[in-house]
Amino acid sequence: MPELRKDPIIDRWVIISTERGKRPVFFIEEQPSFKEGVCPLCPGNEHMTPHEVFAIRQNSPPDSPGWSLRVVPNKFPALRIEGNLDKEGIGLYDKMNGIGAHEVIIETPVHGETIWDMDTASIQNIFIAYKERSLDLSKDKRFRYIMVFKNHGSIAGASLDHSHSQLIALPIVPRRVSEEINGSLSYYRYKDRCVFCDMIAQEIEDDVRVVYENELFIALSPFASRFPFEIWILPKRHESSFVMHSQGESYFFLSDCISVVLKKYLKLLNAPPYNYMFHTAAIGDKELSHYHWHIEIIPRLTKMAGFEWGTGFYINPTPPEEATTYLKETDV
Amino acid sequence: MPELRKDPIIDRWVIISTERGKRPVFFIEEQPSFKEGVCPLCPGNEHMTPHEVFAIRQNSPPDSPGWSLRVVPNKFPALRIEGNLDKEGIGLYDKMNGIGAHEVIIETPVHGETIWDMDTASIQNIFIAYKERSLDLSKDKRFRYIMVFKNHGSIAGASLDHSHSQLIALPIVPRRVSEEINGSLSYYRYKDRCVFCDMIAQEIEDDVRVVYENELFIALSPFASRFPFEIWILPKRHESSFVMHSQGESYFFLSDCISVVLKKYLKLLNAPPYNYMFHTAAIGDKELSHYHWHIEIIPRLTKMAGFEWGTGFYINPTPPEEATTYLKETDV
Repeated sequence: MPELRKDPIIDRWVIISTERGKRPVFFIEEQPSFKEGVCPLCPGNEHMTPHEVFAIRQNSPPDSPGWSLRVVPNKFPALRIEGNLDKEGIGLYDKMNGIGAHEVIIETPVHGETIWDMDTASIQNIFIAYKERSLDLSKDKRFRYIMVFKNHGSIAGASLDHSHSQLIALPIVPRRVSEEINGSLSYYRYKDRCVFCDMIAQEIEDDVRVVYENELFIALSPFASRFPFEIWILPKRHESSFVMHSQGESYFFLSDCISVVLKKYLKLLNAPPYNYMFHTAAIGDKELSHYHWHIEIIPRLTKMAGFEWGTGFYINPTPPEEATTYLKETDV
Repeated sequence: MPELRKDPIIDRWVIISTERGKRPVFFIEEQPSFKEGVCPLCPGNEHMTPHEVFAIRQNSPPDSPGWSLRVVPNKFPALRIEGNLDKEGIGLYDKMNGIGAHEVIIETPVHGETIWDMDTASIQNIFIAYKERSLDLSKDKRFRYIMVFKNHGSIAGASLDHSHSQLIALPIVPRRVSEEINGSLSYYRYKDRCVFCDMIAQEIEDDVRVVYENELFIALSPFASRFPFEIWILPKRHESSFVMHSQGESYFFLSDCISVVLKKYLKLLNAPPYNYMFHTAAIGDKELSHYHWHIEIIPRLTKMAGFEWGTGFYINPTPPEEATTYLKETDV
């Protein structure tokens, strides 16, 4: 059983995956970028994955071909779905069982196709899957947060070539999200306004860091970008939760926005590896006036991130205003 | 002039280095692991670096050969030493001039030699240099923190092959350090004890995560390790500041401890790239009862750190107890 352990000094939880238990030799030997052999995510190989928990398909039965999108439990999950949390103190340390869900969203049946190649309708399916799975997992009383993220490319942490994203349901709210929620609450108490809404208003006014916008969404280079060409996508209307709000036409506009941003990356930065992460309110939170859900997209361009992990201090060699100019000039 | 910019939602500052201003093409083209040609850090090439600010040498004049260690300003500094902070608000954003010092500690005259090859006396010189430079820079009223770190190997962010570490003097306390200081203060207020001292006591008692200890220092795998084979080195006596406390024999015991740990990495993990970072009290802080300085060492073994940056949530595939066993069994 994996464990969730808390740092005794700062409020940081880590997953210690005992079963994965990597020995030193694993790190010494060159690992292939992607696993070789038959692709377990391709149509016809449904038997190679755990049973699907969600799919968008026409008339075919579950775990058979004929789907356009499929969600399956991760075969090598970081957390386990069965069991109790069994919170425990060991001297000054805190731990609990690594209870959670870890699912893989197979975004397309076509091996080699990525979001870069998809039309808006196919991309919408991905967001619908995120929402449907989030709603389902939110019913589990043990979970406090659903973390949706995508690793594209080996450098960004993907271990399978076939286009996919992931979702982890957690019994705790991850640190970066709770810091944001707390930080935006401080601002709200002081100003009685959402800091993200204020930021969007100022960015539209200044117009030097807005990469793209449509009727409902805006893509901008954050003022204090940590990484070159980092982009955040936010709903222009105040919404604290992706899960509560997304419906109907909002999927279309979100898909349009992320499609434009990723296509700009493709063309300008030569198909870079990237990560995106959803930041949204915790499970069970009602509509929050102070928090605003968004997607953070980070192209993995630099390896200069040596001490950043240890200090939380980032050096960004490309000012976001310059990044914005380059991205705006890139037609897609 | 580079800029220091603050994220409006959470208390995170980033350095935006306008002069470095990397264009998209920089990220697309394959960069060489290390700069080619003559090594600017080798003896005889002192004219290729800015004038030295500290050196350990016998009888030779500054900026000439004959040294065993040399400290020079970084030729491509992330921050600039001249100017005022000029703190400024731009709407809801905060920024200040990127004032600071960025220095390079050239640890040895021998190209190709690393801490792995050095004797304890030579390693002591490195720590003496950290302290002397920290003391000198602490006199500058604009600075609040001296960040000492080392990137070993290209993957860990080193851009020069010749063994060196770095030091950045900052007008702010970096986030991870201030979080630790605040976290340990909360513990102190509750328990009236230092959380690090309690941790050391429990680790010695449990004896499952102690990798090495000598008279004055202990090296342990943290209970909530973020990375495989992560190690922290702490003074066993309560000390809040590396700069205030290090003297005489403590350099010997610190050098012994870090030397043993790194040699274990060398042998067990096949000379991995690594980073180390000093966490110590801020400039001007008197002796703090609640804080305890230490060094965090992270071998750069995994690239699975995709979404960690965005969530602050880590998945560690090697339990620290197992890492400890492997490291203890490795004779050096």
